[in-house]
Amino acid sequence: MQWTKVLGLGLGAAALLGLGIILGHFAIPKKSNSPAPSISAPQDLDLEILETVMGQLDAHRIRENLRELSREPHLASSPRDEDLVQLLLQRWKDPESGLDSAEAFTYEVLLSFPSQEQPNVVDIVGPTGDIIHSCHRTEENVTGEQGGADVIQPHAAYAPSGTPQGLLVYANHGTEEDFKELQTQGIKLEGTIALTRYGGVGRGDKAVNAAKHGVAGVLVYTDPADINDGLSSPSETFPNSWYLPPSGVERGSYYKYFGDPLTPYLPATPSSFRLDLANVSGFPPIPTQPIGFQDARDLLCNLNGTLAPATWQGALGCHYRLGPGFRPDGNFSADSQVNVSVYNLLELRNSSNVLGIIHGAVEPDRYVLYGNHRDSWVHGAVDPSSGTAVLLELSRVLGTLLKKGTWRPRRSIVFASWGAEEFGLIGSTEFTEEFFNKLQERTVAYINVDIAVFANATLRVQGTPPVQSVVFSATKEIRSPGPGDLSIYDNWIRYFNRSSPVYGLVPSLGSLGAGSDYAPFIHFLGISSMDIAYTYDQSKTSARIYPTYHTAFDTFDYVDKFLDPGFSSHQAVARTAGSIILRLSDSFFLPLKVSDYSETLRSFLQAAQQDLGALLEQHSISLGPLVTAVEKFEAEAAALGQRISTLQKGSPDPLQVRMLNDQLMLLERSFLNPRAFPEERYYSHVLWAARTGSVATFPGLSNACSRAMDTASGSEAWAEVQRQLSIVVTALEGAAATLRPVADL
Amino acid sequence: MQWTKVLGLGLGAAALLGLGIILGHFAIPKKSNSPAPSISAPQDLDLEILETVMGQLDAHRIRENLRELSREPHLASSPRDEDLVQLLLQRWKDPESGLDSAEAFTYEVLLSFPSQEQPNVVDIVGPTGDIIHSCHRTEENVTGEQGGADVIQPHAAYAPSGTPQGLLVYANHGTEEDFKELQTQGIKLEGTIALTRYGGVGRGDKAVNAAKHGVAGVLVYTDPADINDGLSSPSETFPNSWYLPPSGVERGSYYKYFGDPLTPYLPATPSSFRLDLANVSGFPPIPTQPIGFQDARDLLCNLNGTLAPATWQGALGCHYRLGPGFRPDGNFSADSQVNVSVYNLLELRNSSNVLGIIHGAVEPDRYVLYGNHRDSWVHGAVDPSSGTAVLLELSRVLGTLLKKGTWRPRRSIVFASWGAEEFGLIGSTEFTEEFFNKLQERTVAYINVDIAVFANATLRVQGTPPVQSVVFSATKEIRSPGPGDLSIYDNWIRYFNRSSPVYGLVPSLGSLGAGSDYAPFIHFLGISSMDIAYTYDQSKTSARIYPTYHTAFDTFDYVDKFLDPGFSSHQAVARTAGSIILRLSDSFFLPLKVSDYSETLRSFLQAAQQDLGALLEQHSISLGPLVTAVEKFEAEAAALGQRISTLQKGSPDPLQVRMLNDQLMLLERSFLNPRAFPEERYYSHVLWAARTGSVATFPGLSNACSRAMDTASGSEAWAEVQRQLSIVVTALEGAAATLRPVADL
Repeated sequence: MQWTKVLGLGLGAAALLGLGIILGHFAIPKKSNSPAPSISAPQDLDLEILETVMGQLDAHRIRENLRELSREPHLASSPRDEDLVQLLLQRWKDPESGLDSAEAFTYEVLLSFPSQEQPNVVDIVGPTGDIIHSCHRTEENVTGEQGGADVIQPHAAYAPSGTPQGLLVYANHGTEEDFKELQTQGIKLEGTIALTRYGGVGRGDKAVNAAKHGVAGVLVYTDPADINDGLSSPSETFPNSWYLPPSGVERGSYYKYFGDPLTPYLPATPSSFRLDLANVSGFPPIPTQPIGFQDARDLLCNLNGTLAPATWQGALGCHYRLGPGFRPDGNFSADSQVNVSVYNLLELRNSSNVLGIIHGAVEPDRYVLYGNHRDSWVHGAVDPSSGTAVLLELSRVLGTLLKKGTWRPRRSIVFASWGAEEFGLIGSTEFTEEFFNKLQERTVAYINVDIAVFANATLRVQGTPPVQSVVFSATKEIRSPGPGDLSIYDNWIRYFNRSSPVYGLVPSLGSLGAGSDYAPFIHFLGISSMDIAYTYDQSKTSARIYPTYHTAFDTFDYVDKFLDPGFSSHQAVARTAGSIILRLSDSFFLPLKVSDYSETLRSFLQAAQQDLGALLEQHSISLGPLVTAVEKFEAEAAALGQRISTLQKGSPDPLQVRMLNDQLMLLERSFLNPRAFPEERYYSHVLWAARTGSVATFPGLSNACSRAMDTASGSEAWAEVQRQLSIVVTALEGAAATLRPVADL
Repeated sequence: MQWTKVLGLGLGAAALLGLGIILGHFAIPKKSNSPAPSISAPQDLDLEILETVMGQLDAHRIRENLRELSREPHLASSPRDEDLVQLLLQRWKDPESGLDSAEAFTYEVLLSFPSQEQPNVVDIVGPTGDIIHSCHRTEENVTGEQGGADVIQPHAAYAPSGTPQGLLVYANHGTEEDFKELQTQGIKLEGTIALTRYGGVGRGDKAVNAAKHGVAGVLVYTDPADINDGLSSPSETFPNSWYLPPSGVERGSYYKYFGDPLTPYLPATPSSFRLDLANVSGFPPIPTQPIGFQDARDLLCNLNGTLAPATWQGALGCHYRLGPGFRPDGNFSADSQVNVSVYNLLELRNSSNVLGIIHGAVEPDRYVLYGNHRDSWVHGAVDPSSGTAVLLELSRVLGTLLKKGTWRPRRSIVFASWGAEEFGLIGSTEFTEEFFNKLQERTVAYINVDIAVFANATLRVQGTPPVQSVVFSATKEIRSPGPGDLSIYDNWIRYFNRSSPVYGLVPSLGSLGAGSDYAPFIHFLGISSMDIAYTYDQSKTSARIYPTYHTAFDTFDYVDKFLDPGFSSHQAVARTAGSIILRLSDSFFLPLKVSDYSETLRSFLQAAQQDLGALLEQHSISLGPLVTAVEKFEAEAAALGQRISTLQKGSPDPLQVRMLNDQLMLLERSFLNPRAFPEERYYSHVLWAARTGSVATFPGLSNACSRAMDTASGSEAWAEVQRQLSIVVTALEGAAATLRPVADL
């Protein structure tokens, strides 16, 4: 009769004890002799945040950004360029949607402009010395936007001033082979003016090759066959289509290297050492001027001489002849000459980068760097404002989450708006020169979105192997614009694909040259980089690039009407870049898959064996050590992958993960060798340096072989082949060593 | 009447609740979505372990190590050198006292030896062509250890073979100035043999300078004034004292650079690219041979010609004359000539480094690297076996704690025994070439103990500023050997001190040249390094180095009887190195004080301002940007120090500390610029590169100024001064940027 009471008490006691246990366990934070509860613990990629960001990236706002950015021409260092610096600072400092901080970094750099007082001119001069024809000095004002005083006259930036005059010849792309062909055709090039078309080689190379053969001046035009799918009449071109109008002229830098020409390897601060102009290398050696195809037609369709080879013909509606000089039955008397008067001026100008940052919550010393240049040639709606419009929308969405306190990334995210890219990646290069070590030690990856949208068909990504996996993960989760319900990934694979020995059919990433601001990051600093854009269906057009590239016709309406009505492709690029940035900044384990380098090395190795093996053997050079090195890399990369997945199954310590992530982040650095190609300014990456040799293998090896080819065994050239082989073997062995368990000798 | 019961129940309930709370809190491990409780938490420097290690480092065992190591000559790549590789592997793999793992890394390197068949000879040849006197080919066998077949004949390593013969001249140290002096004295140097004494310049420089003046062959000897405090008789020298016997000859490498001469910047693997001998630079241009001072006396005391300047006189007991040729009243007829026949051979030999590692428990990817070379010229009891004896005792004590499970360091500790150092730091250099990135990314510091004990008076440390503080902390806690109760620090400060603007009177650290294996680590990789030894009281002896250096008299008995009877100085060095290693490997916060670089920069800056300021101004070069850069560095370094002490007061997250430690560890890297001094092989550190200029400031600036000095403004030389100024400003600004809060732009 008492037992119920006892039981009651017992139960109560149990309940109280239990309550206590619960309170004690959950309500009181554990104290320990350990440093404060690791702030790093919970933070990993948050898929809800990712979804939110994807959802908030707004096509309409990108369109409005673009309208503002491209409202006026904003040539590097122009007043409007400075206005945009302020616009970026204001956006990135906005209390509701800004970043943690933003700042402008200004450099004093050497730019090249046509003279205002004395415009560049291209004339045909009759035998009596009077001008019988003049090319257009400006593009036709078809939309009211081509006539402004701030529309820079077309010129070949960094081409020297001068007024050469001579008989005209047609030199196709102006390659070394093209000029050799003219010689074999018995054409005297000494003192001539060479008309060349864009394509084949870099801009500056055309003048360099021409000068080697005594050519006195160079003209460069864009052939309708190369840019307009053959169309050339005003009715068929902008504003009636996306094609280039007859008066359109592609501007561009003709400088061989990148970075400020006066301060190689040094930031162009006001006090920095600067080369004497006499000691600057890489400028075109002879006066050069770009023209439109309507002017090119007048010149080319009146040329005399033998018919140009079939591959040299274009779409100007006449048979292209080689010259020299004009044909008697044409518009100009036979002995007329062409005069190219170039009055370019070199000026030291201030150009700014704008940097903005979101501080990482856990690993603020790890930077996910995302950038694009700001400067354009004219309005630059596509190049570069389409990228900047995306950049601003991404910073707005992330900034808003940040300011609301909803989210802060694990690692720091750095936004960059580079200056003076059009003159040779100057802003980004000076930045890497100024902060070399800080960036090299801490940057996870560099994401570049320059021209965001060339066209609406598909994604196009260039990058180094470690970024492939994160690009794939991101694009599989995003719907592609346009009809159907494909992911960006599934749409992409229809246009660019390759069969991977590891993955089967996958979208193919292109490799990074030096076409935009990623160049100093990958080649000079060895930072894993990528360049992202939406582009066209190459089966539907043969245009080498969007037709109004670097002309005064690259305007907002051009984008709005022809390139991306509705801006859904811009939105797709924003989502792709955004997802990649979040994955890189928030994932506990860095989504950089270093083992994807194995495929590249394998393919380089196979090319070397197939295309160079026999030749090398003749000169008793063995590829054996290279084979061993590639195999070592493959094995170590695979083993590291294994260790990572094992660790991911458990609940690893943040420091353990940090150590692994450092191995992933720093792998790319181990391919750098600043002493490998001393003559190739900035190019230190032994896998991606510029390849002049024809064999698609390790560039140092490929280039050295093509130089040694015709020399005897034991020559210096063959010694250089062996040196290059040892350089790449050392890099691969060194890279493999960094992938091994960190406590292994 | 009921209330007591209620109260009782209440109390019981409270007790139960409380018990529950306690159980819940302590008895049940907290579960969370966070990674496992950080293993990194508790691990910091353990003073008890430190004390244990200090106590267990045993002088007697060091003595026994030395006896074994120096029992036989162990020239690089000799059979005995290979035996010692096995000895090290066996010690480091010992189950009771070994490390986690150990391994030998072998390279195929170019060494230089005298011919066995055809010994190098130095003869005096009479007018009739017959040999009237011959110098000794070997050292006198005074202890029974100098006669062995494995005692290498004295030679100038890498000096070319040849048999020049000519009149003898005396050229003092063989500096550029010395040969100029001979010229001004009207002495024809063409075709002569120059007798020089060690000191003044590097070995190889004597031959380089001589060859510039047409000298045909060079002899090098050690003057008793420079090494023996003037004493030279057998009764006054070893085995009767520590002084060099008359027949002793200093051997050495005469190669200008370091590393394997055939594989600059590449590891000397069997398959590596190797230079043709014709393309190797840095070897002495003319036959060269070292001799003992008894032979030098025969030559020098019979010279003809004018009396040498007072500063050229030595302690051979005669008036030194300049020559050319012998005096009529001497031992040799006046027109006798000296013939120097050198038959050195270059051979590709296998040389091994031995590496051993203790895996770090928390940060295994951070390496504290401690090493010494293994190879000697003969028995090398002092050089290098005194260091190796210490190395083995340290690895034994730490290995024993490890195997017992008593201790495991926070970071990894790597022990290194380098090969072929005597020929030019070859083993260590090849190692840095092979593992460049891995080492540069992960090495906390490099500690070198080559010659552990020169003498018993005091500690002597060379190192870069960030290591000063850890050296001070360690040495303050260790009793110095010998009478009295001073700490090593308090004894040290009596011999080497300076007045620091920050700390007042402190022991002064020397700066690191290229005298031992630290060179590639500091100059090529930018790793904070130090070299530790016990040395003599410079007020008691003027010896440029311990007298039997690089001779067959550097034996165990020499050390046991004269250098360090009782081995207490060896023990002191072992304790110092051991304490430094533990502090670097176990401290939660890295004990590298980067702000100590500010003093160096300040002093370099002041020297530049005082000694170059006016000159630079004349050429309108401003030091303003350098001043700003130094001030920036000072401010950022101080601020970082503040942040660290604040953090130390709290209980910081291990990741936060890792990030700070990375800033400390990597600072030294930011002073590297591989493009700063392209002609100076391996030297990339803009603060410690070899300084040829007289002004004690930034080496690039100092050297460029001394070259530009006599050229006109606007010369290339002055442009180079400006370039060097920008290089150092960029490095300092870049370094300051790495010290800022990591999330700052």
